[in-house]
Amino acid sequence: MNTPRAGTKRIVILGGGFGGVYTAKYLEQRLKRRDDVEIVLVNKENYFVFQPLLAEVVSGNIGLLDTVNPIHRLLPRTRLYVREVTAIDLAAKTVTLSPGFRPRPLVLEYDHLVLALGTVTDFRGIPGLFEHALPFKNLADALRLRNHLLHVMEEASIEPDDERRQQLLTFVVAGGGFSGVECAAELNDFLREIARDYKLKRSDIRVVLVHSGPRILERELPESLGGYAQKVLTGRGLELLLERRLRTATPDAAVLADGSRIPTKTLVSTVPSSPNPLIEPLPLPKDRGKIKVDPQFEIEGFPEVSALGDCCQMPNPTGDGFCPPTAQHAIRQAKVLANNIIAKLFGGEKQTFTFKGLGKLGSLGGHRAVAELFGRIRLGGGWFTGFLAWVMWRTIYWWKLPGFSRKFKTGVSWFLELLFRPETVQLNLAGSKAISQLHFEPGEDVFRQGDLGDSLYIILEGEADVIIEQNGSERVVSRLKAGEYFGEMALLKEKTRSATIRCATPMNLLALGQGDFQALVANLPDLRTSFNSVMAERTAGPVEAEP
Amino acid sequence: MNTPRAGTKRIVILGGGFGGVYTAKYLEQRLKRRDDVEIVLVNKENYFVFQPLLAEVVSGNIGLLDTVNPIHRLLPRTRLYVREVTAIDLAAKTVTLSPGFRPRPLVLEYDHLVLALGTVTDFRGIPGLFEHALPFKNLADALRLRNHLLHVMEEASIEPDDERRQQLLTFVVAGGGFSGVECAAELNDFLREIARDYKLKRSDIRVVLVHSGPRILERELPESLGGYAQKVLTGRGLELLLERRLRTATPDAAVLADGSRIPTKTLVSTVPSSPNPLIEPLPLPKDRGKIKVDPQFEIEGFPEVSALGDCCQMPNPTGDGFCPPTAQHAIRQAKVLANNIIAKLFGGEKQTFTFKGLGKLGSLGGHRAVAELFGRIRLGGGWFTGFLAWVMWRTIYWWKLPGFSRKFKTGVSWFLELLFRPETVQLNLAGSKAISQLHFEPGEDVFRQGDLGDSLYIILEGEADVIIEQNGSERVVSRLKAGEYFGEMALLKEKTRSATIRCATPMNLLALGQGDFQALVANLPDLRTSFNSVMAERTAGPVEAEP
Repeated sequence: MNTPRAGTKRIVILGGGFGGVYTAKYLEQRLKRRDDVEIVLVNKENYFVFQPLLAEVVSGNIGLLDTVNPIHRLLPRTRLYVREVTAIDLAAKTVTLSPGFRPRPLVLEYDHLVLALGTVTDFRGIPGLFEHALPFKNLADALRLRNHLLHVMEEASIEPDDERRQQLLTFVVAGGGFSGVECAAELNDFLREIARDYKLKRSDIRVVLVHSGPRILERELPESLGGYAQKVLTGRGLELLLERRLRTATPDAAVLADGSRIPTKTLVSTVPSSPNPLIEPLPLPKDRGKIKVDPQFEIEGFPEVSALGDCCQMPNPTGDGFCPPTAQHAIRQAKVLANNIIAKLFGGEKQTFTFKGLGKLGSLGGHRAVAELFGRIRLGGGWFTGFLAWVMWRTIYWWKLPGFSRKFKTGVSWFLELLFRPETVQLNLAGSKAISQLHFEPGEDVFRQGDLGDSLYIILEGEADVIIEQNGSERVVSRLKAGEYFGEMALLKEKTRSATIRCATPMNLLALGQGDFQALVANLPDLRTSFNSVMAERTAGPVEAEP
Repeated sequence: MNTPRAGTKRIVILGGGFGGVYTAKYLEQRLKRRDDVEIVLVNKENYFVFQPLLAEVVSGNIGLLDTVNPIHRLLPRTRLYVREVTAIDLAAKTVTLSPGFRPRPLVLEYDHLVLALGTVTDFRGIPGLFEHALPFKNLADALRLRNHLLHVMEEASIEPDDERRQQLLTFVVAGGGFSGVECAAELNDFLREIARDYKLKRSDIRVVLVHSGPRILERELPESLGGYAQKVLTGRGLELLLERRLRTATPDAAVLADGSRIPTKTLVSTVPSSPNPLIEPLPLPKDRGKIKVDPQFEIEGFPEVSALGDCCQMPNPTGDGFCPPTAQHAIRQAKVLANNIIAKLFGGEKQTFTFKGLGKLGSLGGHRAVAELFGRIRLGGGWFTGFLAWVMWRTIYWWKLPGFSRKFKTGVSWFLELLFRPETVQLNLAGSKAISQLHFEPGEDVFRQGDLGDSLYIILEGEADVIIEQNGSERVVSRLKAGEYFGEMALLKEKTRSATIRCATPMNLLALGQGDFQALVANLPDLRTSFNSVMAERTAGPVEAEP
């Protein structure tokens, strides 16, 4: 148990987004002269991400690290724990953190707790999304997406088959809010610009934005600006699929609700986000999973807990619903909250949150943007105002970047962007996952006869046919069901698959890579025995018989 | 099978280091006007790494991407395959590449083959190195090392135990050649400079360079310069352990041949490198694993194959042994080789490699370096000449950086380095490995009673005692041997370990992470049955009995 020094109050902030970091920052400013208070921030990364510029990381318009600030530098008086939060105990007033190098959990006591946990990507609603869609929320997502795009371009440049190349060069983004639009616009510009490096034509690139509403940004902006945004994007070659919904995703396609199938290897989903799962078990008053707070950040029944930012539900000072999940709100909430925590712990006047929002800004790529300010001024709608909105977009976010060094470096990056073509280095740091999950739709092949055998598959849900091709005709030799496994033959004995596995129903699979499978089989005698007996059975039967 | 167009000759180059990339570059220059030749380069990354500046990536003195160039940009006329080479068939004149998205191998035919495969990190000689040492050879290594350093600093900043903190803040580099010296110097400067961000003192940092020779760089430089290098490094706080050899590595320490143990979480090894394993099975004439070539790049008996760079053994034109594995040699070899390939395929005069080397340069950090030029001029040895050598080091490598955009960006990075403190953002992209290998030495604990259970362990080699602590005293309750597994209890039932596992002999383990273990047990009924029966047995016996 880690307790504060005697006579010291400890404020523990969970989450290093706008809400958490700015709360700590304002607390540091106000508590500069006191040494009887300890500010602790817990975040699983050692940096703060400036979310609004994340899309620019994908295209490398700004340096990979320009959008992020080391929290130690931003908050020199705060104690940072780069750990995951594993439990919150409001009764005991403790927070448990994941272990570091040593497998012991760390328990922190607090006098006041600030929940700034934001939202998380939640792919559970749509089958196949967890397995095959790329999220777009944090810096790691942006870099992974960038690497995936470059990988796909490399493969497309050497793919002789037209249909497969077209599949590789189709990029689907789901969600027509600000995040989806900015991501699709940036993808579109980036991929078309680098196409010639890969000996591909700009027109070979197909970027599709799938949106359930009748027009993009319909919740965020008035019709005139949304319409302009659509005109700009389609003018730059982006394809819009409106009033369409993603139904499922597989390794080979995005499948829409109307049954149409877009063959692709790249599906980015910006849609589902839900409250952080740490919030759910807490006995706090909630509304749609978010913590209910009043305009002074009071939570009914829990005076030593506060919440701000995207994980809380606070009445909007405009009188209209709740505060939107934007950076401008989180930053201003942080200032009021810092004051109110100090008032509570050390005495003083509480403040009420009254900020009504400054406006909305969204980049469209190609030096265009849309902006609505103070609910009245609208920029974007024509050539010049669109450009003006873009200049404003850059200026405002540049100004908001924390720290002089980031401002300087981002400025330099934007200058370099004018001089040089985008970077196309694919930084592949992530090792391949040993065990992965896959989702397939009926008619799709998990693998084909003659393919290289590189994984063992276990069926979690669904059924598949085992098909043998001989003299150009296909013959179904058996049906595999949940709980059965397949593919072990090619791993243990042969190098290529002796049959095709085709899904008969929607199917969820667990795939275990070759190296790990062999390590396990070699070292777990029971597993080896079990595989050997299944293999003996299958070799005797028709399934794996040699033609 | 991928065959060249009729009437077209195909030159296939394997490897994208200095040798491979420059061969392609000189071939492109010389073959500009011919369309009856196809240049193919195979490399597993889509970029070329400018190795000499790799150490600067660790400290972030230059941008993460400044040392690397996208090969597509460098070689616009070359067809790049970003794949791994899986087989070379000299008789059939084909090269087989790993599959892309589709699990089919790709077979390339060639008319002329260039082997520029360099060397690979080979940790096999020293037990524990593969499992616990960090290699330092390519860009991914440099970035992984950087992330690891930052992770360790984060943990050190919140570690209350003095001994553990000292372990975290000890960094061991093995190998006193140029690569080890540059890496150790850069680590030392970087960590001391960022220490205060982590509320640590510069003097808390301990960087140790272990070298088997009587002084560092004794093979590379004359004694006067080597001595100066040692003076500079120790003056900056680096600890030198000379005439000491690394015997083994464990998760908690570097163990030297004399039995002394340096507790650390960071061991970087620059020592063992061996020829690429693709070379070994080839029926080419070899010397110590490297391909023997004459000064015209002829390989006896294989007229359509050439080799250059670190994977070949060519008589040194100085008359003294063989060409050293340096960039300056590889680049000049590439030029002669390109000419000789063209002479062979299309007629012309062959050339002979006569380059004798320009000199040697090594950075020592802190704006100091050592240099020996043309075997006569020696720089470094005093304050001013050391600085002069450093200026020369930077200038020469900057000048050698391929492409104007890299030169410009690196220049900007070096300028920014003067203005701002080093970056400390930890970019953690690599997911945790599902199955990992571990090495322990006698007396070390794999885990301790009360630790959180996060992995299942399978003993590959060695033995360990199961120890139960009760009322402050320890009792050995059983002995585990190769083939047995342990730790499954905490994964399936309890959260913490009910016993300590202490190695009795050197031990190699396979560790399977919690999530993957549970997925496997849930879905492989035989495995579940087997674990359940072992568990029932152990619960009945004393091993996992509750105190």
